[in-house]
Amino acid sequence: MKLNCDMGESFGSWQKGMDAEVMPYIDMANIACGFHASDPMTMDLTVAMAKEYDVVIGAHPGYPDLLGFGRRTMQCSPQELKTLLIYQIAALDGICRTHSTRLSYVKPHGALYNQMMKDSEVLATVMAAIHAYDRELALVVLANGNRDKTQHLADQQGIALLFEAFADRAYDSNGYLAKRDQPGAVFNDIEQIEQQVLGIIHEGKVSTLDGGEIPLNADTICVHGDNAQAVAAVRHIRQTLAVSLIPPLTLQAQQ
Amino acid sequence: MKLNCDMGESFGSWQKGMDAEVMPYIDMANIACGFHASDPMTMDLTVAMAKEYDVVIGAHPGYPDLLGFGRRTMQCSPQELKTLLIYQIAALDGICRTHSTRLSYVKPHGALYNQMMKDSEVLATVMAAIHAYDRELALVVLANGNRDKTQHLADQQGIALLFEAFADRAYDSNGYLAKRDQPGAVFNDIEQIEQQVLGIIHEGKVSTLDGGEIPLNADTICVHGDNAQAVAAVRHIRQTLAVSLIPPLTLQAQQ
Amino acid sequence: MKLNCDMGESFGSWQKGMDAEVMPYIDMANIACGFHASDPMTMDLTVAMAKEYDVVIGAHPGYPDLLGFGRRTMQCSPQELKTLLIYQIAALDGICRTHSTRLSYVKPHGALYNQMMKDSEVLATVMAAIHAYDRELALVVLANGNRDKTQHLADQQGIALLFEAFADRAYDSNGYLAKRDQPGAVFNDIEQIEQQVLGIIHEGKVSTLDGGEIPLNADTICVHGDNAQAVAAVRHIRQTLAVSLIPPLTLQAQQ
Amino acid sequence: MKLNCDMGESFGSWQKGMDAEVMPYIDMANIACGFHASDPMTMDLTVAMAKEYDVVIGAHPGYPDLLGFGRRTMQCSPQELKTLLIYQIAALDGICRTHSTRLSYVKPHGALYNQMMKDSEVLATVMAAIHAYDRELALVVLANGNRDKTQHLADQQGIALLFEAFADRAYDSNGYLAKRDQPGAVFNDIEQIEQQVLGIIHEGKVSTLDGGEIPLNADTICVHGDNAQAVAAVRHIRQTLAVSLIPPLTLQAQQ
Repeated sequence: MKLNCDMGESFGSWQKGMDAEVMPYIDMANIACGFHASDPMTMDLTVAMAKEYDVVIGAHPGYPDLLGFGRRTMQCSPQELKTLLIYQIAALDGICRTHSTRLSYVKPHGALYNQMMKDSEVLATVMAAIHAYDRELALVVLANGNRDKTQHLADQQGIALLFEAFADRAYDSNGYLAKRDQPGAVFNDIEQIEQQVLGIIHEGKVSTLDGGEIPLNADTICVHGDNAQAVAAVRHIRQTLAVSLIPPLTLQAQQ
Repeated sequence: MKLNCDMGESFGSWQKGMDAEVMPYIDMANIACGFHASDPMTMDLTVAMAKEYDVVIGAHPGYPDLLGFGRRTMQCSPQELKTLLIYQIAALDGICRTHSTRLSYVKPHGALYNQMMKDSEVLATVMAAIHAYDRELALVVLANGNRDKTQHLADQQGIALLFEAFADRAYDSNGYLAKRDQPGAVFNDIEQIEQQVLGIIHEGKVSTLDGGEIPLNADTICVHGDNAQAVAAVRHIRQTLAVSLIPPLTLQAQQ
Repeated sequence: MKLNCDMGESFGSWQKGMDAEVMPYIDMANIACGFHASDPMTMDLTVAMAKEYDVVIGAHPGYPDLLGFGRRTMQCSPQELKTLLIYQIAALDGICRTHSTRLSYVKPHGALYNQMMKDSEVLATVMAAIHAYDRELALVVLANGNRDKTQHLADQQGIALLFEAFADRAYDSNGYLAKRDQPGAVFNDIEQIEQQVLGIIHEGKVSTLDGGEIPLNADTICVHGDNAQAVAAVRHIRQTLAVSLIPPLTLQAQQ
Repeated sequence: MKLNCDMGESFGSWQKGMDAEVMPYIDMANIACGFHASDPMTMDLTVAMAKEYDVVIGAHPGYPDLLGFGRRTMQCSPQELKTLLIYQIAALDGICRTHSTRLSYVKPHGALYNQMMKDSEVLATVMAAIHAYDRELALVVLANGNRDKTQHLADQQGIALLFEAFADRAYDSNGYLAKRDQPGAVFNDIEQIEQQVLGIIHEGKVSTLDGGEIPLNADTICVHGDNAQAVAAVRHIRQTLAVSLIPPLTLQAQQ
């Protein structure tokens, strides 16, 4: 179970996120590409830091909306969206090349991510962008109820998928993330976050905001490094994972 | 003698330049990369058009200043400038890859171009960016009096140079372009443009704004496609080149 | 019947619209405010030109989306939208003050205009912005079927309304503008434009894209000055208005 | 002696500065206007907060360079600079009007401030912008050696000046601020900051980075609220001022 985290979200003189603090504890860095956050210098520093900690790098492209941090849907034609994505992916991949590394995956940001999970034309456009630029890149998608449909589309385009669950976000009964402005949509409590992570790992299910429970099989869990509390949660999850993922036999074998 | 031309300078709903009209007559398209002009969609369409006419593609990166069209110097640290360049070069190169082609060269735009020709630290940073991203890319520089110094820096970094002359811009006595706001700095007259082109090709020299003459050995001539008159000038130059570059024997052979 | 026209839509070095050609023929200039188009210098020049021709000046604020020219809906909270509007209105009004003139009205642009006509919360927010900044400013709204509801909201806030019809845009059967990408949605033919204008003036009705007819009582007609053909249409409408609006008695009196 | 502080420098989802913490201790809030920092919502919230604490509001306009935070000089024509300033001043003043207050002064930001103090054409343009928009607004300028020249220009245009000194920035021997990247240019130590403030208030002089001393008569002292340490320094200065400014007789009277 890999931990992925949004990184490189500073912009110019504005700092965001505790990248240096959280990088040692994650497996995959989703690096913003300059449209909703980040800038070339920030991207360069973040790629360097990811490489230092052997963290796999993914592109985290978003809508061209710095003011709205990419959290507002912007109506784009498929051709426009495709080129917006290719531009951002290529820019970050180019920076990776200068550090003798490469992108491994793409995870759209914010409104684009949500739209992709609700509108299969948008999803197909995201896949087409990846296919056009480099079909070896995986696409991170929400591990939700439409899994079969998403997998089918990916198979058609030959794109590998990574299904992700969220450690600190509440789910609705359809398997989508509850909107940020709903009460209880974002978890701040480490216990609650740990509960959700353990539920995903050991039982393949998650509680919903309305009190129910849904199945959730994930390849990766999204964590956040926005503040000291979030970073503490990630360290805690990393510890929990270290303990819970070591199978007893393996332990015996090492004795 | 190759003709290079700045292309893809539209932005969103704003059109600039007669790219479709001038593309058939040029050899090298310097495509803007979204910082001083252009956007992902425009870049995509321009790359497609260049490929259609077998025009070699170069990146035309600039300062992040849409309002000022990259014509204002912006103080950047070497590290910042290097990443600004890599970002833009990589973004355009990525779009080229989706069209099964690649960038061949880099030609900085506007204030960055001028600064690069006057400040060897900036020139070295531009070369370092190219070297870091792809050392096979050539760099287009002004064919002026500091040729030896420029060549020396390029040799150190292993970067190939293309020296360029301008068809429609007046030179000062030091071999630099006269500033745009000086009277006579920009030629509109086709005869005058042709004179300058023929002087460069056949005599390796060019008249200066103050009435003198300076040597000018160029690998490529920069033309413009901003308006109907400019496009007509390019067609004329193309014709002139076709005639003037055909060796007499070949002409005989065709009789 | 006043003619209003979107003006000042150039941005930096990108020209848009034939403002100088169309200004002499219009009554009201809707000047962009720098968020979806325009910039301080363009706004200043456009205000100066409007004043020269005694054209009444209105603010034409839009979403902060240069790339999309304000034609994409951007989800904003009421408080955010209100401040986006006040900022733009105040900036243009300030430029007017430096020319010893003032704004007279506000007409939202593009997606914001459409949203305002479909969503009464957005309409109320636009009115709240005007009320907060200067309640003497009128609001230009679409002269369509929801007239009573719109008028009611305006009365509550004490905002004067100007109902507008479009000379060169097709209507759907609900009185809204047909989307730009529908065939026939934008008129280019002068005859067709004149027909629509005469129908609005003399009969208070307009044909719809599906062949029907709807009533349309307007205070002002929106024209465009985007290209030579559009400018010709405006001159033609101005002539048509001059003839059709002169009452017979006046004609007699002039003999 | 008034304390002025740069405020409202957040942008979209990026926070900058501890405005809420420092506002109670200052007299004048220099509020950014959306070009180098801030956005309409941030400006609105900052104006509301200033009004709550009876803090006088000034416009803090800068170059249109979010990425560079307005710290890079951008070559503008006088007409362009004038309209850039009027736009920003008017936008903030408009937001003030919606809070039933008004701007009192203008203090240019960053590179524009530095350029204004070194280039009298830029200074004259800043004054012309103020004069055109509202000649009642004062201009904050650096209290340095060129005081007479600055005052002369201001008298010509009828602009009131407020000379300012800096609490936490080192001066060079010419009375200019030492560049931020020089060692010792920015003070972090509260003692050092207090020393400089007391020197300015009681002796009308300040130590320079090279060990000398220069006269410095100021109407206002610039403080900062960027971080907890800076805020602590401002509280300390406020306390120092409270004590040091109370004349002995008053102290006696209170016994």
